[in-house]
Amino acid sequence: MNKTIMEKAHAGIELPEFTEVAKYERVSIDKIMEGVAAGTIVITKNNVRPRPIRSVGIGSGLLVKVNANIGTSQDSADIKNELQKLEALVQAKSDAVMDLSTGGDLTAIRKAIIANSPIPIGTVPIYEIAVKQRLTGTPMIKLSANDIFKVIEEQAKQGVDFMTVHAGLTARTVEMILRGSRTMNVVSRGGAFLFQWIRFNECENPLYENFDRLLEICRKYEITLSLGDGMRPGAVVDATDQPQIEELLTLGELVDRAREAGVQAMVEGPGHVPIDQIETNMKIQKQICKGAPFYILGPVVTDIAPGYDHITSAIGGAWAAYFGADFLCYVTRTEHLSLPNIEAVREGVIITRIAAHAADIAKGHPGAINWDLQMSKARFDLNWERQISLAIDPKRASFIRDALPPSDEEVCTMCGEFCALKMTKEALPKKTSEKQEI
Amino acid sequence: MNKTIMEKAHAGIELPEFTEVAKYERVSIDKIMEGVAAGTIVITKNNVRPRPIRSVGIGSGLLVKVNANIGTSQDSADIKNELQKLEALVQAKSDAVMDLSTGGDLTAIRKAIIANSPIPIGTVPIYEIAVKQRLTGTPMIKLSANDIFKVIEEQAKQGVDFMTVHAGLTARTVEMILRGSRTMNVVSRGGAFLFQWIRFNECENPLYENFDRLLEICRKYEITLSLGDGMRPGAVVDATDQPQIEELLTLGELVDRAREAGVQAMVEGPGHVPIDQIETNMKIQKQICKGAPFYILGPVVTDIAPGYDHITSAIGGAWAAYFGADFLCYVTRTEHLSLPNIEAVREGVIITRIAAHAADIAKGHPGAINWDLQMSKARFDLNWERQISLAIDPKRASFIRDALPPSDEEVCTMCGEFCALKMTKEALPKKTSEKQEI
Repeated sequence: MNKTIMEKAHAGIELPEFTEVAKYERVSIDKIMEGVAAGTIVITKNNVRPRPIRSVGIGSGLLVKVNANIGTSQDSADIKNELQKLEALVQAKSDAVMDLSTGGDLTAIRKAIIANSPIPIGTVPIYEIAVKQRLTGTPMIKLSANDIFKVIEEQAKQGVDFMTVHAGLTARTVEMILRGSRTMNVVSRGGAFLFQWIRFNECENPLYENFDRLLEICRKYEITLSLGDGMRPGAVVDATDQPQIEELLTLGELVDRAREAGVQAMVEGPGHVPIDQIETNMKIQKQICKGAPFYILGPVVTDIAPGYDHITSAIGGAWAAYFGADFLCYVTRTEHLSLPNIEAVREGVIITRIAAHAADIAKGHPGAINWDLQMSKARFDLNWERQISLAIDPKRASFIRDALPPSDEEVCTMCGEFCALKMTKEALPKKTSEKQEI
Repeated sequence: MNKTIMEKAHAGIELPEFTEVAKYERVSIDKIMEGVAAGTIVITKNNVRPRPIRSVGIGSGLLVKVNANIGTSQDSADIKNELQKLEALVQAKSDAVMDLSTGGDLTAIRKAIIANSPIPIGTVPIYEIAVKQRLTGTPMIKLSANDIFKVIEEQAKQGVDFMTVHAGLTARTVEMILRGSRTMNVVSRGGAFLFQWIRFNECENPLYENFDRLLEICRKYEITLSLGDGMRPGAVVDATDQPQIEELLTLGELVDRAREAGVQAMVEGPGHVPIDQIETNMKIQKQICKGAPFYILGPVVTDIAPGYDHITSAIGGAWAAYFGADFLCYVTRTEHLSLPNIEAVREGVIITRIAAHAADIAKGHPGAINWDLQMSKARFDLNWERQISLAIDPKRASFIRDALPPSDEEVCTMCGEFCALKMTKEALPKKTSEKQEI
């Protein structure tokens, strides 16, 4: 049997992927290999991918990574539009992309995204089953585990790098929801579909029951599992409740089983979580799942801001990453309202990168603080050209500056003549710049 | 001598302001009076104001408040434009406004803002001195403490409710900057002006030296002091350094002196601060300044995002408020680049309110969580009309939803048919709504 990436790391086989990740992260190759072997770092890369991609490491001690979701829906199923979103998110420097399409020819859309993406691609295979089931009107009771695994293997063969599977949502979790008093019940699409399945078929979650079969497919194609959180809270009042933690316990068990099988696994997390519960959520996940990379959506820190959930999520995401989350799924300004358009995709990636970077500098990642230092030096020098070029979004920064141009080009219109930096310099002794010329 | 608000609270005299604040905050009037007497709560209200304003309480145990800065500059000095910004920020529900004008007829602009504002108004009187000094070319050495106090008293007579004074930036602080190795030195405009003054005149900060004279004016007009942080870090690498903390120690001393004189005082704080230092910054301020209300700008958690500093500040501000900050000054998307336009003002207030609210729910303020609960119920019910009306910005929420209208009005275009809430409900036993009809 061929060795997986994880097993190769364990055996000390230096893959080019390890070197690439080590270089990007400015850490030693040993650290990467130790992390991959232990399962605290994953490198998501399908082994039958039709085109090479950047090797992206996600996990403990690495730079926080960003994912952008795209995909069609019943109301918006234009493949060209999705490829434009892909281009926008790649330009905005997302580290990964998920195709969450539920409208149009799903196989063709996925194929096109895989063919055009230079970064890892993830999917939620259950969506494809759900779409087929709803469109053909197939009763739940007729859908078998085989139907699911057929789709999973097809997607694996196409070259998908990581897959979200809601294998931790069990019959016991469903019982908890039925007994409980959640305000929002289930807000995960995959989770809701499996909730239905378990209820209508009166049997255990097929992904949980057949987890070994899933692991076989993952070994064969080197798929990284992203263990989905079907029970993620969709309201701040539902955060950190029994169903959420019950599912997390099962996810911890599945992380162990994936590691034993040499399969890389991440764990997905909340959701809507108030600020005071974020640290706890990050720490309980890392503890229960033995350091598995944590892939989070949000957390959205208040429910009251539709239209601004890129911001409620940046507030939650930056701090969650500081407290241990490794991979931030972007949330755009259209969340809770609509699919994002191209501009919302672009903006969503940039904002999530800001949150990730804020965590990277706070955690002291060696590759992070120099950017801030360069920007501050450019500010101190009142070097506007360099400030713009160093900005995370030079286009927006120059647009804002140019919209109200200062009469004195050295300063900006906020303070004008009364620029604090300029005033302070007038009162400072001459600095070292002259010495340097000697 | 007439008693100040603080002294009346101490003497148990129930002012209408105390009742108004208690009602708004949903806490007892005793709690408000205890806080005002102790100096952990301030109610900023000049006693010669020409028009009544809302009584706004700021401090420990209260809802986190939001301030918006407006004001002209040399490059943009249109009084109508400032009044439009005032209207926009009031509509967006800012709790206070600061007029930071440095261009045009400052007295007339301030008069117009005071006449039109239903919320407290703050200023930084040193700006007016600085403007006069630069425009007339008066040498620093000719400017006396009398010149400053004249402007302060004029502004007090006009009806300004709170004033930022950089009285904590002393000759010792200046020495620290000269000896030190800050990347950005002084980024506060008021701080930079006093830095110049101290350097050129070779004497102590006149606001520090004549602090008792300042307190007399504050007593007379019931001005709330906002003790400015001239040493706030303007780069994340400069955060929590010696000059910043040195100034904070002096501010702590000035808080004591203000309290002894029956004058209300807040303390201003950073600035650019990385995530890992925010909790420490909030706690050291509260400790050194004995629980004085903390009024913060940002904190901006990374330097690399000009054009997105409304977001870097929301990330910092929400958490700073959770850790104890009481009053958040908005930072708009134009920060570091330009003066904000009307839309940036409106957006800035809303985003800062989101940060404040996220902290309020995390701290368990009794008046906060119900909004989120109502929103989540409206989401669960797929009641779109109510979701929009409950949104912090109904205009933006409906604009986004309407831009890509779903074919099924019950759901949204993100999930369409595959709405998790809809799917879960199909699998749930009938809920209690029928029972309620009995």
